[in-house]
Amino acid sequence: MAAGGRRRPVGRTGRRPGNPATRERILTEARRAFAESGYTGASLRHIAARAEVDPALIHHYFGTKEQLFLTIVQVPINPAEVIARIADGPIDSIGTRLVGTMMDVWESEAGPAMVATVRRVLADPSDTRTLQEFVAGQIIRRVIAAVRPRPEESPVRAALVTAQILGLVVGRYVLEIAPLATVRRAELVASVGATVQRYLTGPLPEVGS
Amino acid sequence: MAAGGRRRPVGRTGRRPGNPATRERILTEARRAFAESGYTGASLRHIAARAEVDPALIHHYFGTKEQLFLTIVQVPINPAEVIARIADGPIDSIGTRLVGTMMDVWESEAGPAMVATVRRVLADPSDTRTLQEFVAGQIIRRVIAAVRPRPEESPVRAALVTAQILGLVVGRYVLEIAPLATVRRAELVASVGATVQRYLTGPLPEVGS
Repeated sequence: MAAGGRRRPVGRTGRRPGNPATRERILTEARRAFAESGYTGASLRHIAARAEVDPALIHHYFGTKEQLFLTIVQVPINPAEVIARIADGPIDSIGTRLVGTMMDVWESEAGPAMVATVRRVLADPSDTRTLQEFVAGQIIRRVIAAVRPRPEESPVRAALVTAQILGLVVGRYVLEIAPLATVRRAELVASVGATVQRYLTGPLPEVGS
Repeated sequence: MAAGGRRRPVGRTGRRPGNPATRERILTEARRAFAESGYTGASLRHIAARAEVDPALIHHYFGTKEQLFLTIVQVPINPAEVIARIADGPIDSIGTRLVGTMMDVWESEAGPAMVATVRRVLADPSDTRTLQEFVAGQIIRRVIAAVRPRPEESPVRAALVTAQILGLVVGRYVLEIAPLATVRRAELVASVGATVQRYLTGPLPEVGS
């Protein structure tokens, strides 16, 4: 098992559950819309029309589109708070904060739900598009924006950070591959943090075009 | 889709298929044995007894235990050849060779089968143990051994390399997360290669105990 034990929940939101039947209808239509149109393509207005409710009711029950999506994938985290934790602080230690915060999230009470979500999404290719679009578009992009890279370098930096963080969390928390699952957290935060710092703010190697 | 297109197969073996019914019986018992006992625990002798064949017949049809396992997970690669490609050459460029060879394997004709295997294994937790044991024990360990680290540093170096390579291949070839799936291969080989080199042979950060 992962070192470090469970940590406090990261930005769990406390919305009212609402009328169970209406809530279920909204979730069903939202799942369908995200599967059909992807994260960006799905609109709350459209989901509301198909569930035959007022869009304001979706906001009331679930909050933003992002929060609705996270409810569907059963991941009780608040990305805005996670990103704030990473971005707030000196830019030259953002790599370590990114790795430490990601590990906090996976070791929090949201962890088991995230493991289940990753397993489900990986098993079903039709679910992949929505989650990858969400992770890439809503999370990594905001972290990259915080370090203000040269615009032409953004895709490579995003790709590198994604590869490093994805491997860390999938290997340690989903697959639990030894010794990745068992080495001390501090070793990983230090080494992977330094790598992510390089990927975010260090010079990129010159490669021929 | 991934950049770079399909490459030549990496060490495909050309064994005879053998009698179809006997072959199927061996594969069925082997699947069962790997699932029950893990990669290390399963023995060819035991599989042969359960399939009611001579162990020599398993060797004749499938080769070594490793080759039998790779047939079951439907991954047509030859790990010994892959590891030789990585280990042969100057130690100070082993990081780049590791990343380049891994990308060759995933971009070879074995790629689609490997994607399917990763999806299946991730979806079914009971399959995870065998594959993780195989990847960690048979592949990463041999690459780590090639750089002769201080023994007490081996687990951390193995964990770091696993995290980096796993994220690269799962993100680029299985999830196809943009922009990781679309940036140029050369950019990834250069930057991730430098990271893997550091993880294998560079100094590790001091962390408090």
